[in-house]
Formats: sequence, C-alpha cells, structure tokens
Amino acid sequence: MADVIEALETEDVRFPTSRQLDGSDAMNPAPDYSAAYCVLRTSAGERGHGLVFTIGRGNEVELAALRALEPLVLGRSVEEITADLGGFARRLVWDSPLRWLGPEKGAMHMAAGAVINAAWDLAARRAGKPGWQFLAELSPEQLVDTVDFRYLTDALTPDEALDLLRAAAIGRSERTERLRADGYPAYTTTPGWLGYDDAQLVRRCTEAVAEGFDLIKLKVGADLDADRRRLRLARETVGDKVRIAIDANQVWGVPDAIGWLRALAEFEPYWIEEPTAPDDVLGHAAIRKGVHPMRVATGEHVQNRVMFKQFLQSEALDVVQLDACRVGGINENLAILLLAAKFGVPVCPHAGGVGLCEQVQHLSMFDYLAVSGTTEQRAIEYMDHLHEHFITPVRIESGRYLVPAEPGFGAAMHPESVAAYRFPDGPKWTEVR
Amino acid sequence: MADVIEALETEDVRFPTSRQLDGSDAMNPAPDYSAAYCVLRTSAGERGHGLVFTIGRGNEVELAALRALEPLVLGRSVEEITADLGGFARRLVWDSPLRWLGPEKGAMHMAAGAVINAAWDLAARRAGKPGWQFLAELSPEQLVDTVDFRYLTDALTPDEALDLLRAAAIGRSERTERLRADGYPAYTTTPGWLGYDDAQLVRRCTEAVAEGFDLIKLKVGADLDADRRRLRLARETVGDKVRIAIDANQVWGVPDAIGWLRALAEFEPYWIEEPTAPDDVLGHAAIRKGVHPMRVATGEHVQNRVMFKQFLQSEALDVVQLDACRVGGINENLAILLLAAKFGVPVCPHAGGVGLCEQVQHLSMFDYLAVSGTTEQRAIEYMDHLHEHFITPVRIESGRYLVPAEPGFGAAMHPESVAAYRFPDGPKWTEVR
Repeated sequence: MADVIEALETEDVRFPTSRQLDGSDAMNPAPDYSAAYCVLRTSAGERGHGLVFTIGRGNEVELAALRALEPLVLGRSVEEITADLGGFARRLVWDSPLRWLGPEKGAMHMAAGAVINAAWDLAARRAGKPGWQFLAELSPEQLVDTVDFRYLTDALTPDEALDLLRAAAIGRSERTERLRADGYPAYTTTPGWLGYDDAQLVRRCTEAVAEGFDLIKLKVGADLDADRRRLRLARETVGDKVRIAIDANQVWGVPDAIGWLRALAEFEPYWIEEPTAPDDVLGHAAIRKGVHPMRVATGEHVQNRVMFKQFLQSEALDVVQLDACRVGGINENLAILLLAAKFGVPVCPHAGGVGLCEQVQHLSMFDYLAVSGTTEQRAIEYMDHLHEHFITPVRIESGRYLVPAEPGFGAAMHPESVAAYRFPDGPKWTEVR
Repeated sequence: MADVIEALETEDVRFPTSRQLDGSDAMNPAPDYSAAYCVLRTSAGERGHGLVFTIGRGNEVELAALRALEPLVLGRSVEEITADLGGFARRLVWDSPLRWLGPEKGAMHMAAGAVINAAWDLAARRAGKPGWQFLAELSPEQLVDTVDFRYLTDALTPDEALDLLRAAAIGRSERTERLRADGYPAYTTTPGWLGYDDAQLVRRCTEAVAEGFDLIKLKVGADLDADRRRLRLARETVGDKVRIAIDANQVWGVPDAIGWLRALAEFEPYWIEEPTAPDDVLGHAAIRKGVHPMRVATGEHVQNRVMFKQFLQSEALDVVQLDACRVGGINENLAILLLAAKFGVPVCPHAGGVGLCEQVQHLSMFDYLAVSGTTEQRAIEYMDHLHEHFITPVRIESGRYLVPAEPGFGAAMHPESVAAYRFPDGPKWTEVR
C-alpha cells in the first residue's frame, strides 16, 4: 500500500526564558521563547519536522492554525508530496478559506510555513541528505518549480530565476569543499540584550571576541543615552576589528528613527536593524536615505515575498534578514533568496529563538552553493540558547556555523524536551507554579 | 462595587452560503460566510459586540485568537475602558507576545480588532447612541487620542489630524440633518458573483436598478472572454447611467493585471478593485499608471494603517476600501479615515460578508459628518445577505443606507441565530450531515 501522511502531530512547547531576560529588547521585554511544533508522520513511520517560533502567550493560536491545516495533509501520498513540494506548498498557502485569515501573512501563514518546512524535512530525510545539500542538488528547473511566482513577475520571472541558478553552477564543487572545510560565517546577538546590565554586556562582548566572532549586535532604542553608553562600552571591549550592528526592534516612526540614528552615527554601526515597522517599505527607504551611509536591515518580521520584493524594488534595504519560520516555508524563502540575488543584496538571516539557527543555516549554505555563490557581507545570526533541545544542534566554531551532516532541515526536537516543556502540563511548567 | 468586564464570550458561527455560490469570486470559489463572534459582558450585565468575518474553515483559529485576548480584558474596569478607548486598543494591539504573531496583521490582529470594536459598541450603548453619532460627538482631541500614530507621523501628525477634524466642524449640523433625511450612498455587489450564470446576472442587474442603485460591481478575472461578455450584458441591462465597477480579488500579478485590464478598458469600469496582492503597494502604483485613467481600488485585505499610509503616499489608489473587521478595530479605521482625508482620496468601504454592512456604515456616516465632510464619489458596498441575523439590520432604501437610530455599532446578533448556526454543533449544521 502506498505510503501516506497518517498524522500531523502538534505540540505547544514553551521555555521560561523570561526568568533570565534572555531575549529582551525595546519591544519585547520578557519573552518566553516557544515553539508551535509539528510533525508530519507517515504510515511507514517516517517523520518530517517543522515549527513556528513565538515568544510565549499566543503559541496556542499557532497550534490552532496548525490543526486547521490537518485536513489538507492527512491521507495524502508521501511520494506525491516529496515529488512536488511546490504543489504541496501552494495547496496549503492558497487554500481559499485559510488564506482569508492572512492573506499570506501572520499566524495562519506561519503555520503553513511550518507544515511546508516539515514536508521538506521529510523529503530530505528520505533522501538521506542534510537540507542544504538536498536543496543544492535539485536542478534549477526543479527549484524554480517549487517557487510561487504569483505577484513576483514584475521583479523576477521564472526564466530570470533559471538564469541565476544556472550561472551559479560555476565553481560549485569548489565552494562545497570550502563550505565543508570552513563552515559559514556567524554573528552573535548574545552580548546585546537590553535586559543585561553593563557588567554582563562587557563580559559577553569579551566572550564573543574570544569565541572568534567578528560581528556582534546590540539592541538599542529604549534610551538614547544608554544606547550611546553601551555602544561606547562595547566598542572599547571588542576593539576596532569587530563590527557592531544595532537593532531597534521596530520602536521608531520614520522621523524619530532618523533623528535617533544620527545621534548614534559616530559609532559607525555595521547596520541598523528594524528601525521601524516591518510593513513600512517606503519608511525604510526614507530612513536609509536619511542616515546614509549607515546600512539598513530588516526581515525577521517581513511577512512574505511580496513585501521583500518591494523592499528591494525601492532600494529600502542593504541587508535581507529572512527568517526560517516567518514566511510560507522553504519555498517562499527560495523566492526571497532569488529576489535578493537578482537585486544584489546580501542575505544575513535572522536566527536565535527556538530552532531558528538549526533551520536557517541550510538556506544560507544553499545560497552560497547555488544562488549568490558568495559569503561576502553575509553572516547568519547566532545565539547560544536552547540548542540542546534539538536532535541536530548547530555547531559553532571560531565564529562560524559548521556544516551539518545529518539528514533533514534541523527542526527535530528531542521528545524528552517536548515532554518536559510542554505547556501548560509539562513538568517544567507545573513545577514552578 | 465598580463595574468590570466579567467575560469575553466567543462563538463560532458559520452560514452554509457555499450551497448557493453566494460570495463566489475568482479567488474564493465556495465560501461559507462565518463570524468569530465575541461579546464583552460586564458585571452589570451590559454587553459590547464584535466579530471577525471569515469564509469558513479556519474560523476556529480566530476563536483561538479571541480567547488569547481574554486575560487582557477580564476584570478590567468598564469606566476606565470606555473613558480611554485609545489605551484599551493599544493594550491589545501592543501586547508583546501576541503582537509577535503579526505584527499588526492577520488572524491575531483581526481578533484584536473584534474585541476593540466590542469595547466601542459597549461604550456607545452605555451612552445610548448609535455608533456614528457617538463618534461624531467626540471632540477632535478625544478622537485623536484614540488613534495610534506610531508609524504614521511621516504622513500624518496628531496636529494635522486635529486640524482636519476642526475644519470639518463647519456645516456639521446641516450635514447631520441631510444624513438623517437622505441616508448614505450604497452600491451593490449582489449581481456580480462569478458563480451566477448569465440569466442570474441579468435578473439581478435588473433588480439592482429597480431598487435604485446607481453603482454595481461585477467580479472578474477568471476568464477574459467571459468577463467581456458579462460586462457587455450588464451594461445592456443597466443602461448608461449606472456605473459598473469590477473586482478581480487579487488574481493577477502586475503585468497580467495591466494586460487584462486594457482588454476591459472599453467598458469603462468605474474602478478596478484588488487587481493584485493587497500587500503590493508598488504593484498597485504600477498598475494604476498602466491602466490610466481607470481608477484603482483596494482595502478589504489591507492589513493595517501602515499599509494604507504607503498606498496613499505612493499615489497607488483612487479609492480606499476600508473594512470594519480586517484591521485593529475602530481606532485603526479612524487613522485610515484621517489618512484618506489628508491625501484627498475617497473612502468606499468593503462590506457584505457577515455583519460588515451593519458595522461599517457607522464609519462612513461619521466620516461624512466629522472628517471628509462629503459623500461625493463615496458609497458603501451592500449585499443582501444574512442581515436577518443581526438585531439592528441595515435598512436600504433607493440605493442608500438609512441612518441607524439604535445604540451601538451594529455587530450584535440574535441569540437564536448564534445558536442555530453555531459550528459544528448548531442544528443548521447537524441537520445537513
């Protein structure tokens, strides 16, 4: 009998990170890093894993959104899904009543992305390949077929995407060797949370340099004097050779952003991240002009490829910060990688959270091998949180992500972690009450 | 003892409209019009009503999103809420973990909008006033205080909003009299659903004209030849004096939209609605240039004030089609009305669905009295569906919305309707299984 999807298992997993103020920024003072976790289980007992990252309350809304997708996947042929991951994604994203809840944005779209990522994970596991390799070994035609070009063709056509992918074939085997030997550049946000005091900031900056990072990021935007003090302190600590990016987490309107950033310009931040609303394409373009030559970055809250398209069309961004779990899964992230390559803008993915590093590294490594062909001006965010809950945790050495060798796209969690941190009935939650 | 919010009651109400293909368009072939219905109940037994409109499956996701807001409202002072509806809305929209699920978009934002609308309904009922009047009798300062200007000040400052509102005070009592006497212009989409055959189209066009409508709307975008045939047929039926708008429900990319619309230009549609993705500000601007002088409209799926701001800044729109239940409630719709007035673009709200007409009429009437001061080039969408389930159904005469006199903002449903159509256990659903 043909192998079919037998279950979409879902779990509400929450980590009580707010107790240490890990992850605190100007917008999110006390997050409990959480995952709406899903597993596609086949009748043959195989599994594909995905998740939506949230910061605590409301994770149950993502669970409801995941369950709403169940009727669209149960009983479907595993062969057909893994042979047509483009069709699978379109079926989920373009389901008319569920699309109404977005469209292609917010809680419902993130849930679709998690299930789509789970299908890719299943496909890569069946092929016995790590995600980056599974992607890189697809042909340009197969890759383009997984991308939804609806709403994109004024900026990128399927033929242009094919040309980009074919051109990137040159030198790939050399790059693969280099990637396996050297890994992929990382940067760290661990030093810079707003909830840390100056002593913690200095200690963590020192550690970051000792660990080999040459790019760190500080949260800003709550208090200008404090931002200046912390930037000065960080610069004194890390020296001249380490770059310092800053991140305002959407606190400002456009005029405020320009004023505040001019007051921080002397510190020459490597980029300013999320200076305003992630929906404000024209606002980012205005800020970018107003703070030139400071580079502008955003993406972790950018809802879909249509928004990234406009950020690139309007020259509003210097850095594309895609996220593994915000958009409609790997398919939509492929569209975003292709758009970024077309417009010549580097991709420095958002990561951290729960399992974001584990997942997004595959996209950046694939980009290096098969799309942009370079790691210049590129780095994946890294935070040293919660990796122990994943079956194939990221490995970082000398400020670089080492290439994962295990099959899949990295979202699989230890069943013990899921059981321990299940909300509200796991022992990690019942014991503290 | 002070009056507090004692419960946020929620109900999953679905109408089996797909059986008649009411509501069918190029994107949504078979919707079951539904409401995630909520009632704020006070310890004194008063009630405020709100809802999220959906088209069937996934309505339960909105229910989960509504329940996620419960801890933010339970036990709160009714006096404090109704005296500070701006603060109430900000508390819901800016809750850090729930905001992560958008931010300010999609399932979570719509749920926040429903609860915010319920608070306004409660406030208007306590004041014994219909919504339009309750709004119009707030001072400019009170109104501006309810609006969240974060991310807006590059286009509209609080002071500019105050000036707009103060200027609109001139002639208000005259306009109020005229509004009470003549009502507010309506247009009808009832003739134009894609699922209707030509005979139904002609019959319903004839009825629309007989009922006094001078603007009707046809769905297009599934088949160009059929669009041309149906537009010709509709024009023959309604004559030269009735305007015909068209609505593509987001089916096209930018180049396709321009090509298709040029092929329909000879029919001189009054506007083209949703030619492409509601997220594509720059795409709408390009389409608008490409099909000039055809007027471009969108809004029912535009997620928040930041997107409307950009549509207006980039001259991408001729008609703003705000929706009572898509954005963050009346507060955000006030921001959108003020933005539209600032940029001089008419507002023709989206309605139909479940209870959208009942709610949005208050916003347009308020706009006439207190913001734009005119009904020129303005009309509220109307469909003759499902009004019987509302306690204060809209009244339409000679193609105009009559002014509602009953207290509140119109979302209150008959308890019998809620019970009958409750999904999945109401008798209207159990009987057909």
